[in-house]
Amino acid sequence: MSGARKRRSGGRANRVAARQSSVAVETATFIERKIPCFEILNQEALELIEYNADTLLEEVGIEFREAPAALELLNAAGAEIDGERVRFPRGLCRQLVMASAPSEYSQHARNPARTTIIGGDRTVLVPAYGSPFVRDLDGGRRYATIEDFRNFVKLTYMSPGLHHSGGTVCEPVDLPVNKRHFDMVYSHMKYSDKPFMGSVTHPDRAQDSVDMANILFGEGFLDQNTVMTSLINANSPMTFDATMLGAAKVYAENNQATVISPFILAGAMSPVTVAGTLTQILAEALAGMTYTQLVRPGAPVVFGTFASAISMQSGAPTFGTPEPSLVLYGAAALARRLKVPFRSGGGLCGSKTPDAQAAYESANTLQTAALAGVNFMLHTAGWLEGGLVMGYEKFIMDTDQANMIAVLLRGVDLSENGQAMDAIREVGPGAHFLGAAHTQANFEHAFYRSTVADNNSFEQWEEDGCQDTVARANTIWKEMLASYEAPPLDQAVDEALLAYMQQRKDSMPDQSY
Amino acid sequence: MSGARKRRSGGRANRVAARQSSVAVETATFIERKIPCFEILNQEALELIEYNADTLLEEVGIEFREAPAALELLNAAGAEIDGERVRFPRGLCRQLVMASAPSEYSQHARNPARTTIIGGDRTVLVPAYGSPFVRDLDGGRRYATIEDFRNFVKLTYMSPGLHHSGGTVCEPVDLPVNKRHFDMVYSHMKYSDKPFMGSVTHPDRAQDSVDMANILFGEGFLDQNTVMTSLINANSPMTFDATMLGAAKVYAENNQATVISPFILAGAMSPVTVAGTLTQILAEALAGMTYTQLVRPGAPVVFGTFASAISMQSGAPTFGTPEPSLVLYGAAALARRLKVPFRSGGGLCGSKTPDAQAAYESANTLQTAALAGVNFMLHTAGWLEGGLVMGYEKFIMDTDQANMIAVLLRGVDLSENGQAMDAIREVGPGAHFLGAAHTQANFEHAFYRSTVADNNSFEQWEEDGCQDTVARANTIWKEMLASYEAPPLDQAVDEALLAYMQQRKDSMPDQSY
Repeated sequence: MSGARKRRSGGRANRVAARQSSVAVETATFIERKIPCFEILNQEALELIEYNADTLLEEVGIEFREAPAALELLNAAGAEIDGERVRFPRGLCRQLVMASAPSEYSQHARNPARTTIIGGDRTVLVPAYGSPFVRDLDGGRRYATIEDFRNFVKLTYMSPGLHHSGGTVCEPVDLPVNKRHFDMVYSHMKYSDKPFMGSVTHPDRAQDSVDMANILFGEGFLDQNTVMTSLINANSPMTFDATMLGAAKVYAENNQATVISPFILAGAMSPVTVAGTLTQILAEALAGMTYTQLVRPGAPVVFGTFASAISMQSGAPTFGTPEPSLVLYGAAALARRLKVPFRSGGGLCGSKTPDAQAAYESANTLQTAALAGVNFMLHTAGWLEGGLVMGYEKFIMDTDQANMIAVLLRGVDLSENGQAMDAIREVGPGAHFLGAAHTQANFEHAFYRSTVADNNSFEQWEEDGCQDTVARANTIWKEMLASYEAPPLDQAVDEALLAYMQQRKDSMPDQSY
Repeated sequence: MSGARKRRSGGRANRVAARQSSVAVETATFIERKIPCFEILNQEALELIEYNADTLLEEVGIEFREAPAALELLNAAGAEIDGERVRFPRGLCRQLVMASAPSEYSQHARNPARTTIIGGDRTVLVPAYGSPFVRDLDGGRRYATIEDFRNFVKLTYMSPGLHHSGGTVCEPVDLPVNKRHFDMVYSHMKYSDKPFMGSVTHPDRAQDSVDMANILFGEGFLDQNTVMTSLINANSPMTFDATMLGAAKVYAENNQATVISPFILAGAMSPVTVAGTLTQILAEALAGMTYTQLVRPGAPVVFGTFASAISMQSGAPTFGTPEPSLVLYGAAALARRLKVPFRSGGGLCGSKTPDAQAAYESANTLQTAALAGVNFMLHTAGWLEGGLVMGYEKFIMDTDQANMIAVLLRGVDLSENGQAMDAIREVGPGAHFLGAAHTQANFEHAFYRSTVADNNSFEQWEEDGCQDTVARANTIWKEMLASYEAPPLDQAVDEALLAYMQQRKDSMPDQSY
């Protein structure tokens, strides 16, 4: 444990070195944004949404269910309690959040070179979360197992474009419901050294996550340092349940970060309009974030948004369509005005397979999230079928996009080398730049090289067997897993983690609910 | 002919009515942008690129090949001529372009309700251009024919998201090289009533296009009205050839619009950097646009950009990667500062089939073009394999994206109905919005409905035969062609067009080059 602590001391220097490196995408712990965020709403429009959110909080209120302690806290802070309904005087939530919630925070990794910073001009890319199924080209669609979970932790560890190991990268349904969180948290700790998320499905499981993190990072470290960023979904509309409130409380008390995420299929869980949905998202996020700041002022908290639109024909969720993009651009701007980090989804799609539908929808969502200025991009890679499925090939395709986002957000190099006037003078009209000295000097790092696209000639592609993107991605993830090497973990820490898990597992019967 | 002229008189009123209609996407002649353009470069950066472009124009210059008349014109305007090399005093091109090139122009359609406006806050979506091959699910990849050409004109006519019929929607290689332009231009005139592009492969063919347009619109109309927007590619780097200059001259003299497009595979035809490529694009576009304004001051001209990056491994063009996106954002901003309309590509991709690679790459390019503020988006639909192939199924998928772009650029409705506070008050915590009065009232137009995505449950999708996007798109284009009905064309005009074509075709031998 002291070994883990000692390694961490070099963190800042390592990070600075990594950022200055010319192969930043290979070693980056986040993307540092050099281009503006895209704004679709002017100040007047944003103020209107904020005013309406305050009206919602004041008149309609938010329900905090089966959480009497939370109601007491909120009451003491000035909210009006009516049964489980909590109404907030205009401006109270904003004032409480802005008074103590940090605008950015470090999330420590057990390898200090992987410690990331969430907030500000940074973008952290995180794999998809929560699917009960997996899909690959060979086995098709099937229930996920702990082996799949480990595989996605390993693949994420090996993907330079992903800065974070995520949380429930898939749901290991082969393990008892009340015990699988141990194996999930342990897998992140053991098979990766990137930062990760804790369990939120029960306050006890949040506490188990904290306890395991204490073993990994050393007793006492967590109280002053954040090592987990965990996902607290609202039960939209305008409701938080006891499970999520309880988990949020555990994390906030321990100085661990929470992402307060209204989870919205617009049209069902919010109004059928962009402005109405934005209003509700802001109100729900404000109420949840306020709660974390009452539990422990200064505990890191992220303004989350998951917004899809339902099909008005079938009621099914849809993805990659324009209205949720507008919601995302707006919500990111609202979060910036609150000076808190912002989370959204990444490569969301509704398609059952990683086909063109999946890719159009995912690219639309990834581009939107990148340009909106998302700080914590959950679901960056792997998502299929509205989140029901984690796809192996889809994961590979999305990480290619993740790499591209890093290049896009880095913006335009305006140095003398970037201006390339020497190259233009050297080559001149009608010639070509391939052999120019400037081209040769910049050969290695010029232009993003896709990991999965085929840009060969048609004839070459035919000769190679007419492989589509799925087939190529299939080869890639298999090669990655075959060459995986675990990052070193102190043996004493590993044994302590395993012993803790065994003892806790033995203390309770298996449950399937 | 007089019939055609008379119908046009109702054009403005029709357009206004169309824009005010609640089903704007169905009848729109362009997208009217309500959200800002995304800017990645600040004023200082843009001024640096402009300064460098002027340095290029002044020191290196641009070649105008085998075009003595053009050299004379340029010389008289103050450029320095050295053989075929033309050097422009700093600021001359900008001054000449800004003095007379219109910031926007109407491109008339034979159906005045389809007349579009190019420039300003408008976006006009146009099908792909120039591929010698076509691909569909049944027949695979094969050389394009005039039947394919007609099919894509018909499909474009039937696609509400495309505002323009385009030009060489595919290359009808079954017709003689020197005669196929007649059949292409005629097909646009006969099978669609949307605005279209003329031939540019020889000055004579540009003149044939003008002559046919004179028949369609009535003698004398063209001199004061623009009815074609045609594509003049530069031979990058820094060269214009006699063919393109000759075609540009014919169109400008006749008050017809040209798109002056540097055609750049960066790394081969421009420096390997974004800033260097932007500099060259601006210089080439300025030189070409200047030429059109010398031919006829005030002739509509569009600042064009086609920029891809080559693979530094294989030299193959790549698409949908971040550097060309940065180029596009920058070039659009440079065009805005010149106060001229801007053209780019749309759904560009390198994939051989309409698979996930095609979709990621196309979506990335389409999103970028939409947010950059492109006015004339060529290649919006159908493009495959770096432009070598026009895809039937790809076309259907891309038009779905085109529809979405219209919704995205419309931005957020902040009316009282858009704010939806009544819905929020009505529904409250824990309930759902599906049955709310506000939801019911907005049911019909709430949320974009994809034409090609499958959002059904996995079980339903399996029951429907596990169709992927390509299979669904295949059904759609066949149904569209089966239900196609030609827009009415005055019989006398039709006969005059056919007679003109026959006479011209008879006057020359078939050529295959």
